[in-house]
Amino acid sequence: MSEIQASSYDTVQCQTLRIPDTSKPRVVIIGGGFAGVHIARGLAKSPVQVVMIDRYNYHTFQPLLYQVATSGLEPDSIAAPLRKMLESQSNFHFRMATVTQIDTEEQRIIASIGSLRYDYLVLANGSKTNFYGNESIRQKSFPLKQLPQALDLRHHILSSLEQAILSSSIEEQDRLMSFVVVGGGPTGVEVAGALGELKLHVLPKDYPELDLRRMRIHLVEGTDSLLNGMSAASGEEAVKYLERFSVQVWLNTLVSDYNDDVVYLNNGTTIDAHTLIWGAGVMGNLIEGLNPASIFRNNRVKIDAYGKVEGYDNIFAAGDIAALVTEEYPQGHPMVAPVAIQQGQLLAKNLKKIVENKQELGAFVYKDKGSMATVGRNRAVVDLTDKIHFKGVFAWFVWLFVHLMAIVGFRSKLVVLTNWIWNYLTYDRAARLIIRPFVDVKNERRAEE
Amino acid sequence: MSEIQASSYDTVQCQTLRIPDTSKPRVVIIGGGFAGVHIARGLAKSPVQVVMIDRYNYHTFQPLLYQVATSGLEPDSIAAPLRKMLESQSNFHFRMATVTQIDTEEQRIIASIGSLRYDYLVLANGSKTNFYGNESIRQKSFPLKQLPQALDLRHHILSSLEQAILSSSIEEQDRLMSFVVVGGGPTGVEVAGALGELKLHVLPKDYPELDLRRMRIHLVEGTDSLLNGMSAASGEEAVKYLERFSVQVWLNTLVSDYNDDVVYLNNGTTIDAHTLIWGAGVMGNLIEGLNPASIFRNNRVKIDAYGKVEGYDNIFAAGDIAALVTEEYPQGHPMVAPVAIQQGQLLAKNLKKIVENKQELGAFVYKDKGSMATVGRNRAVVDLTDKIHFKGVFAWFVWLFVHLMAIVGFRSKLVVLTNWIWNYLTYDRAARLIIRPFVDVKNERRAEE
Repeated sequence: MSEIQASSYDTVQCQTLRIPDTSKPRVVIIGGGFAGVHIARGLAKSPVQVVMIDRYNYHTFQPLLYQVATSGLEPDSIAAPLRKMLESQSNFHFRMATVTQIDTEEQRIIASIGSLRYDYLVLANGSKTNFYGNESIRQKSFPLKQLPQALDLRHHILSSLEQAILSSSIEEQDRLMSFVVVGGGPTGVEVAGALGELKLHVLPKDYPELDLRRMRIHLVEGTDSLLNGMSAASGEEAVKYLERFSVQVWLNTLVSDYNDDVVYLNNGTTIDAHTLIWGAGVMGNLIEGLNPASIFRNNRVKIDAYGKVEGYDNIFAAGDIAALVTEEYPQGHPMVAPVAIQQGQLLAKNLKKIVENKQELGAFVYKDKGSMATVGRNRAVVDLTDKIHFKGVFAWFVWLFVHLMAIVGFRSKLVVLTNWIWNYLTYDRAARLIIRPFVDVKNERRAEE
Repeated sequence: MSEIQASSYDTVQCQTLRIPDTSKPRVVIIGGGFAGVHIARGLAKSPVQVVMIDRYNYHTFQPLLYQVATSGLEPDSIAAPLRKMLESQSNFHFRMATVTQIDTEEQRIIASIGSLRYDYLVLANGSKTNFYGNESIRQKSFPLKQLPQALDLRHHILSSLEQAILSSSIEEQDRLMSFVVVGGGPTGVEVAGALGELKLHVLPKDYPELDLRRMRIHLVEGTDSLLNGMSAASGEEAVKYLERFSVQVWLNTLVSDYNDDVVYLNNGTTIDAHTLIWGAGVMGNLIEGLNPASIFRNNRVKIDAYGKVEGYDNIFAAGDIAALVTEEYPQGHPMVAPVAIQQGQLLAKNLKKIVENKQELGAFVYKDKGSMATVGRNRAVVDLTDKIHFKGVFAWFVWLFVHLMAIVGFRSKLVVLTNWIWNYLTYDRAARLIIRPFVDVKNERRAEE
């Protein structure tokens, strides 16, 4: 049996990436995020071979990364193995690799583990943190886009407190207990809120020898409001909520540099802080090889309403990497999960029609189901439409319910629910583990961007 | 408040490790394992200051490490933050550090973060993996004593399969799918059984392109039976159970070397294997500075029946590091959790009496409550006494129940139970995550021993 298996593989020189050779057209999907998974699923019954390539062997539920970073959840709650998610789909093949280049002439992608020919290529490889060219910030701050980064941040937060308790210098203690969060979007607001909860409820019990009232949390936002993209009322409410956790909110302020544990703001202020959490922006995770004319601003690729990348007939894109410019969205659609899911679902349908030579592809229209953010226990803001928005305990329950339902898999839902109920009742955070204390994550960075 | 706090610290030069200075005698406990935690708890109401030092900020429930290594559980299920475990105890202080030396003349310990004077010193720092001097095995095999090691092994097992699916060489695939477990104690038996379950139930669904029947699991044991320390019947049953998972059991066999993915056995056989799991022995985690006359074989320290280290009046030991030689146990007691717990509980009582100048210390008598091991679903062996032993489904339930009850904390119990029920019903293992795919754990080892 094994020999038959082996010989059925296409092992020509330019194709060291072994995939069974079939007569069906091959759809290569780069990325197993919200867009990629929905495209693959949508192609389950299509006469195509689906190959997904991702750097990680799991799908990450990014909206809850901040809870991993603040010791509330463990990785298995928000990460689902991609092979498991799609194992019932017989035309699906997964390969763990980083794609480094697209060769549009030869119709192949080049990855760390070899190259692979495609009939149709789908870019669903999302976005990465934008450090706006500041190398020092890139090296010393903590972004929060990937699971290893969340674990690095958890490690660093807890290690900083262990260091603080050893210090006899008040100044050094203050620096170690100072946290600057950059970016007033949902990630920044939620991580600042979670730090506020740690400060109020969890850490004082762990560190009776430290005066946790001296712990400082700053949230720095460049525009004049938090949660841009949500209603003004929600943004204002978020400021109020955060201030109750004694988070200091800096609006209309930019971080210009970060060196030797000093954060430089563009208003001339400096903040001593051992921890800088960077949630100030993302950009498309662009892969080399596309025609520059197909690239939109912010490293995204231009797509038409059907998901096709401008200038190519067999390259498509969906999710954060894709920019569909419409009258309503002149900058492309927001880089959020619902857009990725809806674009992925539509693109799967369109690809099926293309392969089957059917006409009338579907055009993308974003159904905005509203947005929400939470700021610690019992506090959230929800915008359902332009006019309907609410806040407080009920909004918080809505936030919990919507996120719980969106988590992949019944087991993960149960584990997350158990942890949430526990955390709520006991004011505890169970996963405050410094798994690898011998590693200095700030200077010996583990995760790639 | 902060100034008062700071000035109350004893900051003499030789004591950079800041601990509040009190008039009470200071008990320094090295290690937060089963022994250390029970000693600290037992001293809750004693007129002493308790300082615990551990390299990790968590207590590890070692009996379930193998389930983390085989993707069944996440770390938070079996690791409990030490500060949390002892937070209600006002005389307790924790410092995360590695102790490098004991200075018995000056009565202080020297750690990575400074030194600290003690009135009473308790060695509860357990054991570490014994590689019997083989440097190549030390560098390339996977021990299973600490949580980071379990995560390294999980990463390596899953990465090996991702590599195998990329290979077009049958030989290379076989090498990548070959696992050699060394040591027929509970750890070796349980990890081999768990690998057998992965092979039978989990991996074929994940890797339909691989012929998992070619995955090979070997268990190598130096003596003529498995589970030494348990009854002969249980050892024989374990062999039968493992063989049903097509685990090849090698008795009376030693591993003599490991190089370039080749395992050399002392009977002249070689096994190609990308993964060597080393559970062949442990030795005391000895710290420099004790009088050589106080050292027993296998790097343990000699203690008397009251827990005192031979040759010292104010140094004590409990758990794996301590060897109490009796007629029944001429090699010292077995290095297992129940001994550590019982010795810890007794030592706390004795220390309290010593501090209060009471007479009649308690002498240690080990109450052996039996032992057990599991080999995959529905299969376990339990020895209650020399004469009462049972096996099969009921034994398996007993194993599950005893381990579930022993896990620290109600939340962890719930999460473990949820995962166990899920794993049982679905034949799934949820945590098969290669969190940091860019790290080659085999050649870039993360965990310290």
